[in-house]
Amino acid sequence: MAKKLEEYVTTIPDFPKPGILFRDITSVLQDADGLQLAVDQLTDLVKGVDFDLVAGPESRGFIFGTPVAYRLHKGFVLVRKKGKLPRETITEKYDLEYGQAEIEIHKDAIKPGQKVVLVDDLIATGGSARAAVNLIERLGGQVVKLIFVMELAGLEGRKKLEGYDVESLIVYPGK
Amino acid sequence: MAKKLEEYVTTIPDFPKPGILFRDITSVLQDADGLQLAVDQLTDLVKGVDFDLVAGPESRGFIFGTPVAYRLHKGFVLVRKKGKLPRETITEKYDLEYGQAEIEIHKDAIKPGQKVVLVDDLIATGGSARAAVNLIERLGGQVVKLIFVMELAGLEGRKKLEGYDVESLIVYPGK
Repeated sequence: MAKKLEEYVTTIPDFPKPGILFRDITSVLQDADGLQLAVDQLTDLVKGVDFDLVAGPESRGFIFGTPVAYRLHKGFVLVRKKGKLPRETITEKYDLEYGQAEIEIHKDAIKPGQKVVLVDDLIATGGSARAAVNLIERLGGQVVKLIFVMELAGLEGRKKLEGYDVESLIVYPGK
Repeated sequence: MAKKLEEYVTTIPDFPKPGILFRDITSVLQDADGLQLAVDQLTDLVKGVDFDLVAGPESRGFIFGTPVAYRLHKGFVLVRKKGKLPRETITEKYDLEYGQAEIEIHKDAIKPGQKVVLVDDLIATGGSARAAVNLIERLGGQVVKLIFVMELAGLEGRKKLEGYDVESLIVYPGK
């Protein structure tokens, strides 16, 4: 029987700190079949969805977002950490466990009315996904779906995204 | 006539500092046809090349490397900045204009004898590409080709990669 996507994920205890079970997708990517399966399954999640652009947050959102955009012949919009995009940007802050992070998007990346699918490797607390949604909406874009490879359901990230269509390929019940 | 890849690139004067002409590929990516063209042309550069894995340096190497790996049904190996990979790594330092940078690869990312194609957005001085080659070779991998979207020929990055097969889609004569 074919190997399932979750069997390609490596679980690493106590990374980056004690008590955290880190779900490592590099083992998915370095296997040709794992990468194929992840991208094909993400693509399946947006079958029948009408949209113009894929947006992906730095840097694992780049990894999964660009092959999905390429395969469906859509443009890809980068959501980057502050200070890395060369043209005029808008910025959103969001809370981390300790402190805050800032992400940016080019002002001309999305035209008003364009429909956007957000792709990332993981939804945890939902803070970064919510900030990315805010950036897209401030430019007049419409977030028609958010898709993730993995979801840590115990962190309740979906609560920050109520009213949005959110789907994940692998749902872990814990944190 | 169809638009050429270089017409999708935005040139930004004086970024990140005065005197630098920054070649911005986000305008390639956010156009569905630009992304398609870039990935298709990169894929063409490795037609007929026998290889097992694509490696891409963080973070723009992720953007171009994963769709190439996906399309050709290869695995994708991440070359990351120090401290970001969760499993056991090896590290290489390289010189920047001011100071040094360190990049890493997972020890199990490449098996001895595997053939690897390195993909990145840009070859400038060649320092980061050379460091990535060193990482791959220290694991016993064989770098069979290096492909870039853009090359700043005036910085002579190829000199650091003598003996390797290096190709770029767009060659700018300057720095």
